[in-house]
Amino acid sequence: MKNGTRISAVMAEIRSAITSRRYLPGMRLPSVRAQARAMRLSVSTVLEAYERLAAEGAITSRRGSGFYVSGPLCPLALTKIGPKLDREVDPLWISRQALEADAGVLRPGCGWLPSEWMYEKGMRRALRSLARADTAALTEYATPPGLSALRQFLSRRLLATGVEASPEQIMLTESGTQAIDLICRFLLEPGDTVLVDDPCYFNFHALLKAHRVRVVGVPVTPNGPDVAMFGAALQAHSPRLYITNSAIHNPTGAVLSPVTAHRLLSLADSSDLVIVEDDIFADFEVHPAPRLAAFDGLSRVIHIGSFSKTVSASLRCGYIAARPDWIDSLIDLKIATGFGGGRLASEMVLAALTDSGYRRHMEAVRVRLAREMDNTLARLEPLGITPWRVPQAGMFLWCRLPDGVDAAAIARACLKEDVVLAPGNAFSQSLSAGSFARFNVAQSTDNRVFEALARALDKAR
Amino acid sequence: MKNGTRISAVMAEIRSAITSRRYLPGMRLPSVRAQARAMRLSVSTVLEAYERLAAEGAITSRRGSGFYVSGPLCPLALTKIGPKLDREVDPLWISRQALEADAGVLRPGCGWLPSEWMYEKGMRRALRSLARADTAALTEYATPPGLSALRQFLSRRLLATGVEASPEQIMLTESGTQAIDLICRFLLEPGDTVLVDDPCYFNFHALLKAHRVRVVGVPVTPNGPDVAMFGAALQAHSPRLYITNSAIHNPTGAVLSPVTAHRLLSLADSSDLVIVEDDIFADFEVHPAPRLAAFDGLSRVIHIGSFSKTVSASLRCGYIAARPDWIDSLIDLKIATGFGGGRLASEMVLAALTDSGYRRHMEAVRVRLAREMDNTLARLEPLGITPWRVPQAGMFLWCRLPDGVDAAAIARACLKEDVVLAPGNAFSQSLSAGSFARFNVAQSTDNRVFEALARALDKAR
Repeated sequence: MKNGTRISAVMAEIRSAITSRRYLPGMRLPSVRAQARAMRLSVSTVLEAYERLAAEGAITSRRGSGFYVSGPLCPLALTKIGPKLDREVDPLWISRQALEADAGVLRPGCGWLPSEWMYEKGMRRALRSLARADTAALTEYATPPGLSALRQFLSRRLLATGVEASPEQIMLTESGTQAIDLICRFLLEPGDTVLVDDPCYFNFHALLKAHRVRVVGVPVTPNGPDVAMFGAALQAHSPRLYITNSAIHNPTGAVLSPVTAHRLLSLADSSDLVIVEDDIFADFEVHPAPRLAAFDGLSRVIHIGSFSKTVSASLRCGYIAARPDWIDSLIDLKIATGFGGGRLASEMVLAALTDSGYRRHMEAVRVRLAREMDNTLARLEPLGITPWRVPQAGMFLWCRLPDGVDAAAIARACLKEDVVLAPGNAFSQSLSAGSFARFNVAQSTDNRVFEALARALDKAR
Repeated sequence: MKNGTRISAVMAEIRSAITSRRYLPGMRLPSVRAQARAMRLSVSTVLEAYERLAAEGAITSRRGSGFYVSGPLCPLALTKIGPKLDREVDPLWISRQALEADAGVLRPGCGWLPSEWMYEKGMRRALRSLARADTAALTEYATPPGLSALRQFLSRRLLATGVEASPEQIMLTESGTQAIDLICRFLLEPGDTVLVDDPCYFNFHALLKAHRVRVVGVPVTPNGPDVAMFGAALQAHSPRLYITNSAIHNPTGAVLSPVTAHRLLSLADSSDLVIVEDDIFADFEVHPAPRLAAFDGLSRVIHIGSFSKTVSASLRCGYIAARPDWIDSLIDLKIATGFGGGRLASEMVLAALTDSGYRRHMEAVRVRLAREMDNTLARLEPLGITPWRVPQAGMFLWCRLPDGVDAAAIARACLKEDVVLAPGNAFSQSLSAGSFARFNVAQSTDNRVFEALARALDKAR
């Protein structure tokens, strides 16, 4: 028998095993050596046959581990990844619920301000001024890193929190979430480990699921993550990345202290950990907290932000500030996966932020939030719902429910009365926040929120 | 020795091998059985030690194939994936070049219309009308599938090309590229095989690189992909997905014939292949060509589009029409990786498309394109540059250069004169289009394009 014929014979044998489903998709094939022994052929003949089958796509070679039967089409359904969660604490369900809710629904669990609180006046002004802008602004793609004037503005603006980033170190994105997503695509492989705060913004969980990575939570203290636990997690899990909120932590309202910031960065240095610092709540701060990116000089910290929480959620625009070589690769990834950026959205954001009314608008928002924070605390107190800590600023109040009450059950009961809550375990990787809930004080101004809560609590006790 | 101590001993042994770099990142560890033999311990002790190390992240378990040393941080640099390409035919380099070019640069190689050709008047009108819109339009996130009124409009509009998609089968995205990217995330695993046309839109190559899949090209005929080669590629490579342009093919101007459409779909049916049909050039057509999605009824075909080529590239908005269950999973993926959509961009697109001026605008564009198509042909002819076929419509002319002339060399020479070309191999997976180039007739109205070409050709001969 000629060698070509022998190779074909091996290929036919494997193909028939696959067709007859003796070899199932995902199964490892016998090693080349074992197959050669079984078929009384040389190792090189079998290897050649395997490699030809791999070139055809019938089997897949994995470096250093052998050959596998190629699998069937298996679409990525995020709801099927990880443990099955109750709907009420499923990040995607909560997000869809909040995004879908019509005007009649009350949303104390929602993560943004009511539309009447947003910078509507500035948006209308920006639209009118854009209607008179030059042709390029109205019709062209943005440049690869994004609108130069907005990057220059952001570069100056970041200095207010001590973050030094040249305009060349800034890339605009379609949103804060897209910024983190691009960074994850850039730095992570499926199976890597990522640290998050426990509790943290729940969409981080959904996003990391889409990247098929392992997520480890580090408990949050009022001064930021617990440093000892953070160090232990580095030792135990060798994570690639830590994703956190700066300024006012979501959902807890914790504020990073300088000493915590310094210790985190020392630990990160010694473990070669990259940190993503999401700064979307910067403009809600009354006293600026330390930024990891400011201490680190954008060496291993990547700083991101967006304008959906302060200017308008209807405009999609975010940014990444990072090392220049990383920005260059991130631009390639952005073009490959989304092509040109939205010049119009960047022009609108620039117009809104440089409008003299924006500062006054945010001052008014901060005052209003402080007032609603007091109001919400006063209304929660009689229900036995107490704050984990009273935040210095921002819209979120992280609260403990009365003893023994399950937040998911309360959320379920409130939903029947058209009140959407955010129960604690949606934020907790370890599912250890079952008796907590996050209240958005700007979305808790209607008495019906507290009436529905009172009824749900009564029933639960 | 207690069992706990024995487990710790194995863990210490492996850790020290990793630290001393005896075991390198990515290396497969000795099998549990071999390790147990070598250390004279039970298989269960070694397995427990391996599993604890995997839980720590120091090593990684791969189903059915053993344990591997976890790798170092290795950021995804797209330029480092695949064969090293000359800059002139590197899709990312060409895209960045075209997006960056300032006003003085001529761009016959660019993939879109000059800004003066876009629907500027409609954009200004839409901006003025949006400036008077209600608060929600200006400040809120879009609903998870995207603005309902635009989805209803698109559902009716798709009927013009025979594509039946209810508004519930349509999801809005930030762009046509993001639409394809989400579909790839949904359907592909690294190592899968994807079919593309050879030649095809070059950003498909960059996008698929980011998904780390194998790309196989199928030659294009004037009636669509070569059916026999398509069938052979299905047999040989078991691809998951085929990504193609409908209407007027980019770069060739080929138009799918009904018989090719039918045969492709029969082949796809028998191989369980999913097809993505990118319909961004629909509004340039004079006589509508068959759509795969119309023949297939959105069963295995996913239909996508955007408005960057006709309304404005400054607005980011695209869509996906697909099976309802796929749309549902795609919405989850969109929220996880980008959160809410841009309501403002959708409102602008809706305003522009429903403006009575849009139809007249596109009529004028088609007439102007036909004229510039003739002009460009007349100017290329004396240079010995001949069309592969004269397209029925659209902006692209796929041309063969004079015998023996290398398009990449010509592109290099023209770039020195501030003329950006698109040489054939940027579009060709097999790099078999070295003597071709794509001309955008709308971007080839300046004499200097042809003067620079003439000088470059002279030098090359």
